[in-house]
Amino acid sequence: MRIAILGGTGDIGEGLALRWGLDTDHKIIVGSRDPQKARQHATAYRERIREQGGESDIAGASNIDAVGGADVVLLSVPPEYVLETIETVAGSLSEDMVVVSPAVSMSRDDSGFHYEQPESSGSATAIAEEATPDGIPAVGAFHNISADRLTNLDTELDVDTVVVGDGKEAKYLVKKLADEIKGLRAIDGGDLANAPEVEGVTPLLINIAMNNEEMNHLGVRFQ
Amino acid sequence: MRIAILGGTGDIGEGLALRWGLDTDHKIIVGSRDPQKARQHATAYRERIREQGGESDIAGASNIDAVGGADVVLLSVPPEYVLETIETVAGSLSEDMVVVSPAVSMSRDDSGFHYEQPESSGSATAIAEEATPDGIPAVGAFHNISADRLTNLDTELDVDTVVVGDGKEAKYLVKKLADEIKGLRAIDGGDLANAPEVEGVTPLLINIAMNNEEMNHLGVRFQ
Repeated sequence: MRIAILGGTGDIGEGLALRWGLDTDHKIIVGSRDPQKARQHATAYRERIREQGGESDIAGASNIDAVGGADVVLLSVPPEYVLETIETVAGSLSEDMVVVSPAVSMSRDDSGFHYEQPESSGSATAIAEEATPDGIPAVGAFHNISADRLTNLDTELDVDTVVVGDGKEAKYLVKKLADEIKGLRAIDGGDLANAPEVEGVTPLLINIAMNNEEMNHLGVRFQ
Repeated sequence: MRIAILGGTGDIGEGLALRWGLDTDHKIIVGSRDPQKARQHATAYRERIREQGGESDIAGASNIDAVGGADVVLLSVPPEYVLETIETVAGSLSEDMVVVSPAVSMSRDDSGFHYEQPESSGSATAIAEEATPDGIPAVGAFHNISADRLTNLDTELDVDTVVVGDGKEAKYLVKKLADEIKGLRAIDGGDLANAPEVEGVTPLLINIAMNNEEMNHLGVRFQ
């Protein structure tokens, strides 16, 4: 499987590149607007995986080049760039690809973080679905995982991720890819319309971390 | 401690009465609009706790009588009755009491359940806070616990509940009461303004149960 991680030089994208690199044989293409930066990060990720005793197949490229030939395209970009990022690579997307969105729109006030449901589409995942050319499904996943925990390869994940989307095959594929990461359990959250409830957990995790000492880099388990 | 559970004849109220009855020495007053029904349920709860080898102090009363002398007043009523229930008992509430709301507003469509954020107040917990007479704090808690799991005393809970509210002492008291239930861990979710993110987990739990075999009566762990 060939996984393109757009905006893969930081945050959740870095963590997923490292985890898939360490735990699977998939080819990972780290995408960035700056291909030079993407290649530098890819080299650094391979090195970090080598330090863990692993071998990985991670390369860097521009976002557009990363998408070419990919089976899965993951959008590791802030929610306000989901639309623009898809539009940039739209010409390289094809119907056998699956687009994955972990984006969550949040606001902040004196009390903490709050879920900002996008009024037009209902969720960041739905924005991705609407932006992809017809026939290319978008799947929501990896919303509620701490990027810090994901990137720290000495940490056992031991958390769940809820996967939502209207395309059954696409959702099944993303669930499988998530389950291949050690310590991560993928759960079916149902249709795309259920994305807001999944995205809304992310600000809750931050609020809990802000209000409880010794609860940091939180994830969630449904049990 | 004297805990009045209004609407305590069913759902989450029944579960909390049973768990506090079994695991603590607090006096529980099961409230109902129908005091006869409340007394019958109180008797049944004591019997169920006796079957577990426990002794409990559970009585039944009308909602208004249940509130008299209570330290904590828990509103186990559907979200659309939160306001009305508080108004009914408002004359019996006093400033040394704490009101607790586990209510969550939800809608349903073909995909599943969705969080309906009350536009006026922002959360069901905030509706409770606004409805209580000045000086009486409302605390949100017990939103994300399956009533079925709570009422099944043979089941280990092994879940978290997130407690939110603006009154620090009130929140601390409710956290303590929650922690006294075996297998339940209370977590500080911060201010009342953070209630929507906590309430929003409830429809997610239902959606997950609907879409995953063998995942039922779900709760959540933050870790």
